[in-house]
Amino acid sequence: MTLVHGSGARETFDLIMKTIVSKVPERLRKVNGGMGIDVLDDGAVIPIGDKYLVITMDSYTVKPIFFPGGSIGTLAISGTINDLVVMGARPIAIMDSITVEEGFELNVLEKIVNDMIDLLKKYDIPLIGGDFKVMPRGNLDKIIITTTGIGLAQNPIVDTRIRIGDKIIVTDPIASHGAVIIASQLGLLDNIKNIKSDAKPLIDALLPVIEKYGEHIHAARDPTRGGIASILNEWAINNDVTIVIDRSKIPIEPEVRAFLEALGIDFLSVASEGVAILAVDPQYSDDIVNELRSRGCKAEIIGEVVKPQSELLKGKVIAITEIGGRTIVASRGLNLPRIC
Amino acid sequence: MTLVHGSGARETFDLIMKTIVSKVPERLRKVNGGMGIDVLDDGAVIPIGDKYLVITMDSYTVKPIFFPGGSIGTLAISGTINDLVVMGARPIAIMDSITVEEGFELNVLEKIVNDMIDLLKKYDIPLIGGDFKVMPRGNLDKIIITTTGIGLAQNPIVDTRIRIGDKIIVTDPIASHGAVIIASQLGLLDNIKNIKSDAKPLIDALLPVIEKYGEHIHAARDPTRGGIASILNEWAINNDVTIVIDRSKIPIEPEVRAFLEALGIDFLSVASEGVAILAVDPQYSDDIVNELRSRGCKAEIIGEVVKPQSELLKGKVIAITEIGGRTIVASRGLNLPRIC
Repeated sequence: MTLVHGSGARETFDLIMKTIVSKVPERLRKVNGGMGIDVLDDGAVIPIGDKYLVITMDSYTVKPIFFPGGSIGTLAISGTINDLVVMGARPIAIMDSITVEEGFELNVLEKIVNDMIDLLKKYDIPLIGGDFKVMPRGNLDKIIITTTGIGLAQNPIVDTRIRIGDKIIVTDPIASHGAVIIASQLGLLDNIKNIKSDAKPLIDALLPVIEKYGEHIHAARDPTRGGIASILNEWAINNDVTIVIDRSKIPIEPEVRAFLEALGIDFLSVASEGVAILAVDPQYSDDIVNELRSRGCKAEIIGEVVKPQSELLKGKVIAITEIGGRTIVASRGLNLPRIC
Repeated sequence: MTLVHGSGARETFDLIMKTIVSKVPERLRKVNGGMGIDVLDDGAVIPIGDKYLVITMDSYTVKPIFFPGGSIGTLAISGTINDLVVMGARPIAIMDSITVEEGFELNVLEKIVNDMIDLLKKYDIPLIGGDFKVMPRGNLDKIIITTTGIGLAQNPIVDTRIRIGDKIIVTDPIASHGAVIIASQLGLLDNIKNIKSDAKPLIDALLPVIEKYGEHIHAARDPTRGGIASILNEWAINNDVTIVIDRSKIPIEPEVRAFLEALGIDFLSVASEGVAILAVDPQYSDDIVNELRSRGCKAEIIGEVVKPQSELLKGKVIAITEIGGRTIVASRGLNLPRIC
């Protein structure tokens, strides 16, 4: 059996569980009762004193390297920050390992590094080390950036606390990043010329809200690969619930929606890089939406967590369609290469 | 200007300094007065309470993926552990990001992961998370593994504490890993059939010694890319000293030496993956060698740190040759691809 690019989130999840996680003995899956590899969340949590060290790791490749709204550098730093923020952690440092192909232009590398450092400066986050390698020509397509994010949390958000009745909130219009990348790859940027990638750190908009509402936020993620469809399915499966969302409530730029619909791509599966999805206590959902809006977000409540009506619906995500129908939302990786 | 694979350590160092480090503002180069990107050591140090969190990051690619004595999996885990150990840190957890090319064989991935997990089990180190991606065919040659090592140190070893008179110790015969990889690439494995890669974690042999002798060990590194020539040059430059080594005192398997000499490759520049080089207080150098030998190492004192006899010799490494001559040891990356 060989490995295939662009497999669905479910297949990749199963592969990682079977090939890697299941081989790691129980005692070596986490440190000091924290959160480790068995959780498959964005990061790991290590209790240190009365706080929690949160460490995330992610590899970034994207084609094209530069796109409307940013570059692979913007993506790497935003993504790393956001992986920490959605776990409730304040970033304290980032490390990066950059691997480029022989023949990579130095001035292109400089532009990418500048994009990274501009964001680090803006949010005052130290870059404390890393690695840099040049691979022989033909061994790598251009560039891969792998980052490690290091953060501290008082109350890390673990995505297994979801309860029946929770409201699902999306912080901003989704799928703009994915749409821009798809359009770039297909030579169709003219079709969405007012749209830019949403890639940005969620520190200003989301972190203060997470710190304020703490335990009332039961789950938080940034819907990158696989879009919100992938995250919602993961939440439904891991918490044995049904999640119902209303497609007409989901914030999305009309131009992005029209572009993706014309291609037959469901926007629920398309990546965002500066948006978060939350599951929150219904008592606080309006307050949280208002707080997010006061910070410049276009947040919306898009659905809720319900008791599964049958065994079949346990672990499933249901979408109410624009004409009132109900469909099951599958979790699938988008079959287009290298989107985030 | 484009980037070239296999450039010397000096060129890569200059490139990293110019393109990345110099762009990061002073205040964002470290956390809480720890050690950060300006040090260019194997890892970063963050003071946390009365201890120090040490975090390392490294990307591993090697051709062939399997070699006598191990695989890229052995290399990734040994290298990560050793980067922590030579900073005086006890590993508490590892994270990994594996990227493979589409079409990569699943059973090959499983073998590599097994090599990784076998070492983690042996040394009881948790694997607490990471990332896994499949890249489209043609975008990557086989596999890259990037790791993050997380450790705790009481007294991190900073390589700027080297003093005149320090003795240089090598813990075991050098260059076996590099020789095996070079032989594999050239189809010459028959010429060194008794040699295996030295890739192994340095926890049992070196960590107790570092913890026992603490501040008397002034510098420690594992001589991977560029071999001991590269590390010694870095130490000489960063500490404004001359380092003199005696080539006849350097432990190396005769078969490895003969093989490299036949190819015209200086063993000082060839990588080891389970060896450390130390600069220690001369008062303790014999004790440290004996302690290392009692733990199964073939440690030797190979040289010492001296006062530069002229401005020209400041920051230089001098080797006493087998016939008593003196040569300057240059730092150069080996021009053979993907050795570690």
